[in-house]
Amino acid sequence: MSLETIKFTRGVPPAIAFPEERLSSIATELLQEDSANLLQYGNGYGYLPLRTLIADQYHVKPENVVLGQGSLSLLDLLLRLAKDRPLCVGIQEPTYDRTITLLKNLDLQIVSTASSTSILDVEELSRKLAGGQKLDYLYVIPDFQNPTGSVMDFDIRQKLVNLARKFHFYIVEDAPYRHLRYVGEDVPSCFDFDPEFVIHMSSYSKLICPGLRVGFMILPEMIAKKLAKFAEDSYINCSFLNQAIVHRFASEGCLEMHISYLKGLYNSRRVTLLETLNKVMTPYGSWEITEGGFFVGLTLNADIPTGSLLDTAKADGLILTDGRGFFVNGGENFIRLPFCALNQEEITTGITRLQAVIKANIAMEF
Amino acid sequence: MSLETIKFTRGVPPAIAFPEERLSSIATELLQEDSANLLQYGNGYGYLPLRTLIADQYHVKPENVVLGQGSLSLLDLLLRLAKDRPLCVGIQEPTYDRTITLLKNLDLQIVSTASSTSILDVEELSRKLAGGQKLDYLYVIPDFQNPTGSVMDFDIRQKLVNLARKFHFYIVEDAPYRHLRYVGEDVPSCFDFDPEFVIHMSSYSKLICPGLRVGFMILPEMIAKKLAKFAEDSYINCSFLNQAIVHRFASEGCLEMHISYLKGLYNSRRVTLLETLNKVMTPYGSWEITEGGFFVGLTLNADIPTGSLLDTAKADGLILTDGRGFFVNGGENFIRLPFCALNQEEITTGITRLQAVIKANIAMEF
Repeated sequence: MSLETIKFTRGVPPAIAFPEERLSSIATELLQEDSANLLQYGNGYGYLPLRTLIADQYHVKPENVVLGQGSLSLLDLLLRLAKDRPLCVGIQEPTYDRTITLLKNLDLQIVSTASSTSILDVEELSRKLAGGQKLDYLYVIPDFQNPTGSVMDFDIRQKLVNLARKFHFYIVEDAPYRHLRYVGEDVPSCFDFDPEFVIHMSSYSKLICPGLRVGFMILPEMIAKKLAKFAEDSYINCSFLNQAIVHRFASEGCLEMHISYLKGLYNSRRVTLLETLNKVMTPYGSWEITEGGFFVGLTLNADIPTGSLLDTAKADGLILTDGRGFFVNGGENFIRLPFCALNQEEITTGITRLQAVIKANIAMEF
Repeated sequence: MSLETIKFTRGVPPAIAFPEERLSSIATELLQEDSANLLQYGNGYGYLPLRTLIADQYHVKPENVVLGQGSLSLLDLLLRLAKDRPLCVGIQEPTYDRTITLLKNLDLQIVSTASSTSILDVEELSRKLAGGQKLDYLYVIPDFQNPTGSVMDFDIRQKLVNLARKFHFYIVEDAPYRHLRYVGEDVPSCFDFDPEFVIHMSSYSKLICPGLRVGFMILPEMIAKKLAKFAEDSYINCSFLNQAIVHRFASEGCLEMHISYLKGLYNSRRVTLLETLNKVMTPYGSWEITEGGFFVGLTLNADIPTGSLLDTAKADGLILTDGRGFFVNGGENFIRLPFCALNQEEITTGITRLQAVIKANIAMEF
């Protein structure tokens, strides 16, 4: 058993998942072929061939696609576009901690639809809206959600899109893990239901590597135009070189092959995590059997003391993320377990340590 | 004489100024050596070796340096840091059009110190401040200003820094052209006078290429820390790969040699522009003899009709930027002439066309 510290913290890909050799040769090719364009300033929309490739995939026009320095940056821009503040943005709880921070920094009104089961309570949201709750955007991560790993049901997606149509808000669908399904069948995205009321965002951070900083947003043409203009006013453009590297990697078929490789790598880690949880964590908490993405969300039983859990875990060589970051309120009993960046030995050791820490915390309490 | 359209518009470097071969080999080296780090997520401050290199150059600590996706993006973040809106930001007029747009988009109060001579009227600013005008930041481009090409005098820099100390505001010194002096002697930067009251920003867009999108800001440690946190909250990080490429290009001496090459290339274009202006434009306007950077600012005589100048110029194969973009008010008689992206024939042809258009406009008026 390894004595190294094990980090169950950020949802990052492991370095072995980076296709650095091909990226390097692509960079060389591109700089030979098109440096006058790729090293120059560009426009706020981003590199047209990549926008066209994405547009073809999603059956929209390139005018609907804006590329950004990661998708979070595009969300920041989108939420700053509207002048009639404060915007009301709905979220499900728990959700991606960086989105919560972004919303707080922008002083927006957060409309939270909490749920202990990690399934968005569409009836509660519907009642709020019928009761007059204003809503401009509803931010959701339907596929392999961060931090729970859960997948939103077909029915809920359909109901949400119907609500968006009825109450005139946009669903912002964050889908960075959508292409990383290891078992089971795809569910249509919210965007598939209605591209007029759904803004779809994703990135290549989990599919190629984070370091190129290439994300994208698909949105109605008029909003895309405003967003691209606002991007240009804020930072001129993102690196066309990086976007061109992504484009070539995808257009020559490397991306598809690479995703197959990632699925094999990540699935074995997922299986290890779920088996280990089953073996040692059943008395202490519950989790969904995640079928893709990066995370399993562990909710500890309500009677387990968690006040000093992070500190005692750290002392025992296990770094955990504070679950409260994924909630507007609460989250003390929530632990996000990202499994992609750890190998199988680290996963089993980490979960075994977590069990020991929980047991010790319970023992201290009594 | 060429019949091609000549674009006296954006201040971009020409493609022949891009060192694509060396950048390509550096990218390959870096991806072989350090892909696990460079393709991964990073922090909001940026790639430490480049921050350290900049810190050494400016005699500060790496903790004072934040890297960004161009320097405009960092200015955007800086101005969004403060919560006690509206911030008051002073500018000289004319100034960089993108900064004016940024300030307007952020709904900040713009305190303009106008000047027909393109020299910042420090006495007027001093009177305003003594009269109770609030000021949080004063944005200036002391070296080879965009759009006038002018250099701020030593005395004015000193007086501005004294005002900043006395009235407790920060001077934001935008210095992307500072290292591109073709003749004459350097003037100490405002930052050299007092790094406590001056935030210095610059980028590698004009020294290596814009397409890597690497800029930086040097600021007091506490503000740098807040800025880096805010950057991380907004977009996680900029591409460490791109920052590492810049670092290696600079640290192995390529940057210094490349700047020498750029100076030779750009100076001959500057000389051509100034000679041509002298030859054909003397009766119609005035300009400063710029000693570096990218621009000569031409102010047409007040009696020259300019209402349809841009349109008639365009019809005659000459694209000009609307001078009003560089002013909060006015600017109708101002023409920015960027000389770096045009070869000598294009410059002489362009200015000759401009003279013809001005003459035709005068003839039409009478």
